[in-house]
Formats: sequence, structure tokens, C-alpha cells
Amino acid sequence: MPAPPTDNTVRIVPLGGLGEVGRNCNVLEYRGKLVVVDCGVLFPEESQPGVDLILPDIDYLKDRVKDIEAIVLTHGHEDHIGAVPYLLKLRPDIPVIGSQLTIAFIEAKLQEHRIRAHSHVVVEGDVEKVGPFEMEFIAVNHSIPDALAVFVRTAEGNILITGDFKMDQLPLDGRLTDLRAFAKAGEEGVDLFMCDSTNAEVPGFVRSESEIGPVIDDVFARATGKIVVASFSSHVHRVQQVLNAAARHGRKVAFVGRSMVRNMGLASELGYLEVPDGVLRDLGDMRDLPDNQRVYMSTGSQGEPMAVLARIANKSHPKISVGGGDTVLFASSLIPGNENSVYRLINGLMKLGAHVVHQGNAKVHVSGHAAQGELLYCYNILEPAYALPIHGEVRHQVANGGIAVKTGVPPENVILAENGSVIDMQDGEVSLVGSVPYHEIYVDGSSVGDITESELKDRRTLSEEGFIAIFAVVDQSEEQIITGPHIQARAMAEDQSVFDDILPEVTVALQEALEKGSDTYGMQQAMRRVVGRWASRKLRRSPMIIPTVVTV
Amino acid sequence: MPAPPTDNTVRIVPLGGLGEVGRNCNVLEYRGKLVVVDCGVLFPEESQPGVDLILPDIDYLKDRVKDIEAIVLTHGHEDHIGAVPYLLKLRPDIPVIGSQLTIAFIEAKLQEHRIRAHSHVVVEGDVEKVGPFEMEFIAVNHSIPDALAVFVRTAEGNILITGDFKMDQLPLDGRLTDLRAFAKAGEEGVDLFMCDSTNAEVPGFVRSESEIGPVIDDVFARATGKIVVASFSSHVHRVQQVLNAAARHGRKVAFVGRSMVRNMGLASELGYLEVPDGVLRDLGDMRDLPDNQRVYMSTGSQGEPMAVLARIANKSHPKISVGGGDTVLFASSLIPGNENSVYRLINGLMKLGAHVVHQGNAKVHVSGHAAQGELLYCYNILEPAYALPIHGEVRHQVANGGIAVKTGVPPENVILAENGSVIDMQDGEVSLVGSVPYHEIYVDGSSVGDITESELKDRRTLSEEGFIAIFAVVDQSEEQIITGPHIQARAMAEDQSVFDDILPEVTVALQEALEKGSDTYGMQQAMRRVVGRWASRKLRRSPMIIPTVVTV
Repeated sequence: MPAPPTDNTVRIVPLGGLGEVGRNCNVLEYRGKLVVVDCGVLFPEESQPGVDLILPDIDYLKDRVKDIEAIVLTHGHEDHIGAVPYLLKLRPDIPVIGSQLTIAFIEAKLQEHRIRAHSHVVVEGDVEKVGPFEMEFIAVNHSIPDALAVFVRTAEGNILITGDFKMDQLPLDGRLTDLRAFAKAGEEGVDLFMCDSTNAEVPGFVRSESEIGPVIDDVFARATGKIVVASFSSHVHRVQQVLNAAARHGRKVAFVGRSMVRNMGLASELGYLEVPDGVLRDLGDMRDLPDNQRVYMSTGSQGEPMAVLARIANKSHPKISVGGGDTVLFASSLIPGNENSVYRLINGLMKLGAHVVHQGNAKVHVSGHAAQGELLYCYNILEPAYALPIHGEVRHQVANGGIAVKTGVPPENVILAENGSVIDMQDGEVSLVGSVPYHEIYVDGSSVGDITESELKDRRTLSEEGFIAIFAVVDQSEEQIITGPHIQARAMAEDQSVFDDILPEVTVALQEALEKGSDTYGMQQAMRRVVGRWASRKLRRSPMIIPTVVTV
Repeated sequence: MPAPPTDNTVRIVPLGGLGEVGRNCNVLEYRGKLVVVDCGVLFPEESQPGVDLILPDIDYLKDRVKDIEAIVLTHGHEDHIGAVPYLLKLRPDIPVIGSQLTIAFIEAKLQEHRIRAHSHVVVEGDVEKVGPFEMEFIAVNHSIPDALAVFVRTAEGNILITGDFKMDQLPLDGRLTDLRAFAKAGEEGVDLFMCDSTNAEVPGFVRSESEIGPVIDDVFARATGKIVVASFSSHVHRVQQVLNAAARHGRKVAFVGRSMVRNMGLASELGYLEVPDGVLRDLGDMRDLPDNQRVYMSTGSQGEPMAVLARIANKSHPKISVGGGDTVLFASSLIPGNENSVYRLINGLMKLGAHVVHQGNAKVHVSGHAAQGELLYCYNILEPAYALPIHGEVRHQVANGGIAVKTGVPPENVILAENGSVIDMQDGEVSLVGSVPYHEIYVDGSSVGDITESELKDRRTLSEEGFIAIFAVVDQSEEQIITGPHIQARAMAEDQSVFDDILPEVTVALQEALEKGSDTYGMQQAMRRVVGRWASRKLRRSPMIIPTVVTV
């Protein structure tokens, strides 16, 4: 574990977002003060059953909370703000800095956790002193409005952190990624470039959001019945295009799904979403309209089982049904990892007779992250001395580093780091100096941080192999079994009667252990051994075995 | 359930492969005789824990085995032959018909199950009488050599079943999909076209296998250290291109992985794989060669945890290690659903320092299934009266039907069926007449067909919510608790001591039930109710609860 940084060292410790897509969180430290840039969540895979969310390792900050000057949020996506409530629980008065829409989203989230944010709204062009850091905020274009990059100035060097970004040259809101500001930063000198790696493996350029409008319009023009559109509840521009198409085709729109209603409400209050006159309806009022005037703007595009779209596919949504003649439009990306649940949903909706349009059969989505074409522009205009690819899996980080090298960054100046890596900058020189212990923090129901890797391993054993519980009551002085062994097994694909086979042997093993004077642990182990060997040989399984012996 | 077919009805019952990609199996019935076309397996998803394989519902054939004239196999892929052993267990002497390579693969598989096949090799152009059916075999091009389509002639009409196919016009082995034979079938009249739907959503044409050769060659030319190539163990042409590239670059090749060694052995013995002189080495002999002369041709391209590539990434393969300077080439497709395990593998190999080439960053794979471009050619040259899209999920079947309609098949003549659908053809007219009861047959370890949906639901509950086992021994006549309640819980993210809270209440409930004169079931339910309510309220969980009360 590296020594504490000296006063002329800026230290960067990524606590999430490296080697994965999710829970972005980068901690900057300088002269004893900390700034946390982003604090998001990661969603679990199927091999992490029962886990709701995974947090960055904020335990690293547990003993330093008083030194945190601020949390700076680049934009309002869950993988950048989702873990803020858990960090604020450590110290609720940490200032939270971000753009207007970002602060609106985090305040809504914090309200649900009954925390009042000490928030501070900034705008692109603002230069703020945040502890020992000077931070200039730069507009970037992304799949949520009001996203910012941060240019951090210190005496030891300058760092440009992109947040998430792309460079749509015809953005719907006219808010470009500010390449002139990047140019000025480049002229001033960028010692370290911390850049979004998500699309670094993708050649070419990302298509413009404005190309989707005509495609949505075409879907609306051909639709004869109801239309259900699914997208992320934070994709304001996508929803804008749906509202515009609805207005053009004489249809009304209802927002469906709690987060869609809330986020679009905030966005339109604050002027990010322009609702054409008379287009919006409450969900409950839609049934007064004929099918061909209805649009449901809904959540659930990733096939989430409890969300609106899945319930429609299951015919269990109280207010919305689809069938032949209706259209479902997935105006959304398919997040890698979600393929099974998304296609299950698409197939389910088609089975109901709906016409389903999705990125597999129409150009209805564009990414929010810069591809190789855009990244080359950035590296060339910034000419960073060092590159620290962030926000991506290893393959993305590697590809991002490759682009850096192509534009002239020396290969040894590309830092391929992990969560927990410690990167120090001194007088413009950046190096990987070591790492801090790093562990996963799982959130499951009301429990935070109690689930360990070995717990998850247990869950996988249970689900794949099942369990066998064996119970007996003995009288140690009389060396007698009072009752048992009784066997209860689950998830073993077997009739309970199959265990009758092994009962005699277990009984013998228990009796022998009793007579030998074993303690309860010894007797339990005796039963475990017999059952374990039998399960392995006879059933070809390795179930979890839970033997219990109680003495009277 | 539809009535048995009359003597002038040909009945088609798909038992697998519709609404999914896997376990293809179509049963044809005519005048009391059955032919089973393909009998493959489906691989489970993560939501089916502990399941190894899923079979087509061959229970449908249980009472009709004596009427099965033959099993006809279109080609040697697992999703077409994998379930044959389970079918033959019902009647081992059912004749198995297929091409030379297909029969070689199924015989090797049956040997592992200790079954001797009654096999019959056919060649494209052969016309065979199989019971009441006349079957003509037609060459098709696919991602395994020697694949066949089947043109079935009966007095009630003709059926063309494609098997899996594409139409590479420059195939490596010169064996084209025989469009002239399709033309003749079209002239004769195709009443029902049962067509591979896998790529029906994909616009355009599939690129040629021959385009991959130069890409592989380029990878080999740039590689300075060891090369590991991963692909499917049945992709003879892909392996051929690797052997050719190795020969051109002065490298030797070892086959790694049991199925790779076996399948390539069969393929080269039978002349499907041409091994350049001196290129092959045994795995054990590779260490005598310098790194830059080695190629490992291996399995595990889908990230299978126990396969070669995953073990290399884990640094647990006894004979192969990779690091900086080495190259890993995924010359394979990424089967939808496998994204997480494949990317985990790619990231893991990159972390070791290897240069990893995969379809995300190079054109190293082409599909084995016809896309929209090829399908349009087929529908136009065959002009079928009816279309029954097979081999695909609902979205693929729907897209395939859409192509049929575009070429002139009346929409009402497109049959969108499911596994278990019953389709009858009489005098050239085809219709969906009903369905038979259909259920899943899961293979888990040595158990076949014992796992039910409710069992799988239990497994998911266990893994997501954990379980609580409660045990007590009572004396009913004395209305006394002898010992207990004792609580054992697992996978609940909780310290066992948390259950001390609820023990008093459980004890009270048990005592009351005892005094009320409840039977053991009643006492168990009393304990269950208390613990269930507490778990839900206090822990916010719904674990499996297993109460046991024993009387003495």
C-alpha cells in the first residue's frame, strides 16, 4: 500500500468504473483534501443472485470523510450518481456540485433516501475553487442533457476528465461538446487525460441523434393502432423526438413508469424538454382516446421483469395491453449483458401480435459514447502527456490506450489501471505507484456491505446443487439417538424418498460418533461425510449440507 | 388435442427449435409412420441453474417408438444431433440417416453413451424411400461441412426442409448450396417450405468464409509470440484456414480440447480437412518450439468456464500460458446470450497482456445462416405455397414470414408455429390444426426429466432469497417442546444471531399450536407463518422456509 501523498503530489484513486461499465467514481487527493468525481452504481449479473446494486469501494473514504471538499457529478446517469446516497450517509453535509439537470436528478434521488443535499449548481464556463483544486467546467454532449467535463488545474499539473461524452455535431439542443474549450486546454497543457473508453473498440463515428427523428416518424406514420415507445427514463432528447412525432401525427402521449414520469417532469419544468401544446395526457385518460391516437412513453427497455414493458408482455399491466395492429418501438440501446432479457421481451410482445421495432431491425438508437473517430479528434486537439483510460472494461481501456498511442502519446505514458489503483502526478509526471485493498460492496434489500464473495458462492451452490439439511437429537450421557436423523432436501431434482437409501448409513455414523464421545461438531461432521460422499457418488452432485445435532 | 391424422394427411409436429435457437426437432407423420428430422439440444440460460441440457419434448414419441422409421440428421451440430442418444435410449435400433461427416460425428457421440448406431450414409442427390416418405437429399452450405436439406415427396404434397444453411458463393470446399436442385424442386412444386430463420432479421448478405483467410493471415503476420486461436470444434473450414495460415508463416499447430482433437481427427481422416505436411504437432511437443512458431487451435470461444481458453485466462492450464507478446484470436461467433462470459474471457486475457483479436475489433467471423438477401433468392426460386419458418426465436420466425410475404406468399399461408404445434397438409393445403401438450425436459447430471419448472423456481428463490430451516421436537401427549425451535439459515446476508430476535415468538407459536392439539403439519405452519412475516418485515426478504416438527 503506497505511502500517503506528499504536499506536491496529486493522487488519483479510481474506486469504480475501471475494468467494468458502471459505478464510476474517481477520487482526487491534494494537500490532504479529497474531491470525489462521480459516485455511481453497477448493476449485478445473473451470477450475483439476490444482489440489487454494487457500489464503488467507498469504504476507502470511511476514515477521510471530513477531508472531502465536494462530490462533483459530471451528469445524471445512475452509473455516475447512484451511489451518492450511500456516500452521504457517511457525512450528509458534503457539498454536491453539478449542472442544473444533474442536481435536479440527484436531489430527487436523495429525497427518496431522506437526505437533503448541500448542492451547488454550476454551468459550463464556470471556474470554481474546490479545496486546493481549480475546476473549470466544460460542456459535453451525451445521451442525457447538461453533461460536463472537468478541467482540473493544480500546481503539479492539469487533468481533463471527460465524464461520459460523444461529439454529435448536430445535437438536438444545440449544446455541442465544447471543442474550443478542449483546444484552449490543449494549448495550456493537459498533463493527464482521463477519458471515457466505452466505444473505443468501435471504428468510425457515432451517428447523430437527429437521424433518429425521421425513423421514429416513419414508425408513427405506418402505425395503425396503439404505439408503445420504450427508452431510458433519462434520455430527454429521445423523448423529445417522440413527442414531436406524436404532435405531427395527431397522437397524444402518456408517460408510463415512475422514473419516466419523474424525470420528464423535472426536465420539462427546467426547460430541457419542450412539450408541444396539448400532446401530454395522464395515463388514466388514454382510454378515452381511440387506439390510433395513443402513444405510451414507457420504461422497461432492458427487459427488467418488474418494469412496464415486461408487464405489458405478460398481459399483467392494469392499463396497457397490446396485440395485433399495435406497435412497440424500442428506441433504446441494448446494454451488453441484457441480451437475454431484451430478446425475451421482444419475442413475448411479438407473440401477442404486436409489430416490434428495435435496433436489430431499424436504426432507432445511437450510442452516447465517443467512438474511435471522435476519440482521435480529442487526443489530437488535447495532446495530453499521459492517458488514463476510464469508464470501460479492460478491452475498452486497452483500445482507448491504442488510440492514444496512434496520435503520439508514448506507450509508456498510457496508464492501464484498475479499481483501487493509485496514480500520482508530480510536476507533470504521472505514474502508477501501487494500489489500495479493494473489495465489492453489495446492496441486497436493506443490507449494505454484508454480502461477501463467499456468500455469493453459497448462493450459486444452492441454486445449482441444492441443499440437504440433516437433523438429529441425541442424549450424550445415554449414548442414545432420541430422534432422527431426519433429512430435508430441496432443489435436488429428486423424490424425497431417495434419501431413505442413505438414512441407515447416516444413523450408523451418528451412533458411532455418539459412542465414541464426539461433541456435537464431531457428530455433525460424521453425518456430513456420509451424506456428502453419497450425494457425489449416487446423485453426481455437490449440494450444500447442513447437519445439526442437538443434545438433551 | 387434435385427432389422429387420416391416411391422406401428412402431419408435422415441431418438438423443438421454434421460438428458440436450439434443440431442433421436427416430426413428420404419414400413414401411421414417423420420421424425426434432427434431434438436438438447447443450452440453458443462467435463470436455469444447475441444468446441463434441455431436450426437445421427445416424451411425445414415447408411445410411438415402434412407428419411427428413421431419424434423419441434416448436419452434425449439437443443436441438431445432441439429443439423439436420449431418443435412441427409447429404442436403440432406430435407423439414423445422414451425410458421411454427420454420421461420423453422431457415431462418436453415441459411443460415449455406449449405444451403437444403426446408421446409413447418404450423399446429396440420393433419393431414399423412408417409410411412406420419398426423401431427396440436397447439398447446402453451412458452418460445418456436409450439411443437407431434405426434399420430402408425398401424395399429399412436397415439403422442403432446409436444415441450417447459407449460400456462400465461394465456399472453401467448393460445395455450394445447390440452387439448381432448389430450382427443380420449385418447378415440381414446393407445397411447404420449412426454412432456417436465424438471420432473417439481418439485412443484406452473409460475407464469404473466404474473406476470413486474409484476416487470419494478417493476424499471423503481425504476431510475434505464441498464437492461440479459438473456434467451434466443428468448424472445419475455419480450422482449415488456420492450418493454411500457419503453414504460410512457418508455424506448427496443436489441437487443444477434447472435442477439437476428436472432431478434427474425424474430419481429416474422412478428407474434409486437409492438413498441410508437417504442420500438426501434439500438444505435449509444443514446448520444444520457440513461441513464434506455435499455434494452439482450441475450444472455449464462448467463455465456457471449464474449457481450454478460460483455463488459460485463469492461469490454470497445465500446458498453455499467454502474456505480453502473445496473440489470442477468437475466430468464432458470439452466440447471443453468451456476451457476459465471452467478454469476461476477452478482458481476462487482455489483463494478462495478450493481444486479443475478436469480432468486435476485426472481421474474423461470418455467420452460418442465410440473411435476408439469401432468403429472398430462396423464396423466389422455390415459390412455396406455404411457409413454416423454423430454427429461430419468435422475432426470427416473424421476420422470415415477412420475407415470404414480400415475395408473394399470401400472409395467411405463413404459419407462425410453436414447439408442440400440429400442422397438417392434405392435398397441397397446409394448416395449423392445434397443438399437443408440451413440456421441457431438463438434463441435470444423471437425471433426465426430473426437474420441473417449480423446481427451477425453488432454485431461483434459494439463490436470491436464501432459506431458513426451523426444527423442533415435541411431545404431543405432554404438550411439551422437547428441544427447539432451532434455526439454521443460509444465503441470507445476515449474522446467525439476528434470528435470536424471532426465536421467542416462534416458540410461543409452536407452544400454542401444541396446546391447541394441532398435528405436525399445523405446528409447522404456525412456525412458518411467524418466521415468514418477520423475514419480510425485518429483513425485507422472502426466503424459502422449511419448518420440521418431529414428535416423540
